[in-house]
Amino acid sequence: MKGLERIGISLETDLLAEFDALIARKGYTNRSEAIRDLIRQDLSAARLDDPNAQAVATVLLVYDHHVTKLADKLLGLQHSHLLETISSLHVHLDHHHCLEVIVLRGSVGQIHRVGDQMVSLKGVRLGRVNLITVKD
Amino acid sequence: MKGLERIGISLETDLLAEFDALIARKGYTNRSEAIRDLIRQDLSAARLDDPNAQAVATVLLVYDHHVTKLADKLLGLQHSHLLETISSLHVHLDHHHCLEVIVLRGSVGQIHRVGDQMVSLKGVRLGRVNLITVKD
Amino acid sequence: MKGLERIGISLETDLLAEFDALIARKGYTNRSEAIRDLIRQDLSAARLDDPNAQAVATVLLVYDHHVTKLADKLLGLQHSHLLETISSLHVHLDHHHCLEVIVLRGSVGQIHRVGDQMVSLKGVRLGRVNLITVKD
Amino acid sequence: MKGLERIGISLETDLLAEFDALIARKGYTNRSEAIRDLIRQDLSAARLDDPNAQAVATVLLVYDHHVTKLADKLLGLQHSHLLETISSLHVHLDHHHCLEVIVLRGSVGQIHRVGDQMVSLKGVRLGRVNLITVKD
Repeated sequence: MKGLERIGISLETDLLAEFDALIARKGYTNRSEAIRDLIRQDLSAARLDDPNAQAVATVLLVYDHHVTKLADKLLGLQHSHLLETISSLHVHLDHHHCLEVIVLRGSVGQIHRVGDQMVSLKGVRLGRVNLITVKD
Repeated sequence: MKGLERIGISLETDLLAEFDALIARKGYTNRSEAIRDLIRQDLSAARLDDPNAQAVATVLLVYDHHVTKLADKLLGLQHSHLLETISSLHVHLDHHHCLEVIVLRGSVGQIHRVGDQMVSLKGVRLGRVNLITVKD
Repeated sequence: MKGLERIGISLETDLLAEFDALIARKGYTNRSEAIRDLIRQDLSAARLDDPNAQAVATVLLVYDHHVTKLADKLLGLQHSHLLETISSLHVHLDHHHCLEVIVLRGSVGQIHRVGDQMVSLKGVRLGRVNLITVKD
Repeated sequence: MKGLERIGISLETDLLAEFDALIARKGYTNRSEAIRDLIRQDLSAARLDDPNAQAVATVLLVYDHHVTKLADKLLGLQHSHLLETISSLHVHLDHHHCLEVIVLRGSVGQIHRVGDQMVSLKGVRLGRVNLITVKD
């Protein structure tokens, strides 16, 4: 898709052997690919420090669907005009609990703000916000 | 849903004031609810140390859908018989990139294993596995 | 030391039982103390989002002391005038490797900057920066 | 110190440019070194999943030294025979608070156990346990 560059790095033999074993266990078939993934994760983490960076996030919520108005409030937050809610997915875990995964797109700062509000809603029992930055 | 108990805790006045300010900013309307959430998160994190604990997880993947056979391999992993794939959600990010959120249920150890394999597939550019433990 | 306030919270019986078991395993003799600790950690984590908040940090470095000038460079960074280096502790791990723990005080932003520079010095094999915010 | 191997990896040009900018900001003068550090961190994190792996840890504690017997209890835990306490460092933060950094060596599982007990002592206001695995 883009131009490729080839770079060389030198590594201690035993470090390389341990790395090869780790990535084989994880399922990599290719060392280059594993190193590229480390670099991408490092860059993605660094970008998250900037509240204005663009990101995609999943908000993972476990909630009690018997709590009245919770679903409405969640929908309201998803339609707040600051953020673009791309999609959401709903799973029935048991008689009381639902799992909802909401995919948001927006700035890192806005996602944290809206994510915190979702997690703090009455009836939400566990919540987790996870961001991945995307290059524009 | 279950029996409720009322407990009392004593806190330094200034600690309480700072906590009240933080939870108001996060959107809590109720201090009890905020403390319950801290307790639930603490318990959920502790349970994740046990590879046999039951969990629900989202695997968040950004991948290049032009890479051949990637979608097939991802589907194959979702249908591996060790884990129950509950659902998945697919979003087109741009001409090259897709976001896929896969919801898995299983033991903590199995989820980590399958999650690592998904993240390490050729063509997956960024991946993140997030677990929430659930009481059976 | 400061005024104390007593607050009541209500909790599901089974949640409370699981929490009591967890904190007993961790060594707490007192439920109030365990909840106060959760609140303090939550506040400390929230304060770390502000690059201007005051913090104390440990920089944990494993390095090869045969690499020339590394010790000098580390000392130089510790005496950079932006930060107050409170103290440091040096441990010989084996023939090649030293562990150095450097305690810094300053703003969250400055600590991250100097910590990154320490971790990236040639000869440093592993590094980790950990911050705890302190109320002034 | 050990044998060195040279490997080649191919990377998208724009990914490489962004990585070069990030590592320059962190203070790296050498791309090979930055990639080796990513690999070492990845290996160290993977080793921490094994409770029997050998590790070095810092326990960072902020505590109120007016709480009676706390110092004695901390010393007692440091001399528990399961772990080797290498060293500790004590800093006076203000009239009430001390910072103590305790360096422990032992298995990952033992360090977590003893670290939890230190953090849960009455009078300890904030605590953080950080591990780095070491190759034997």
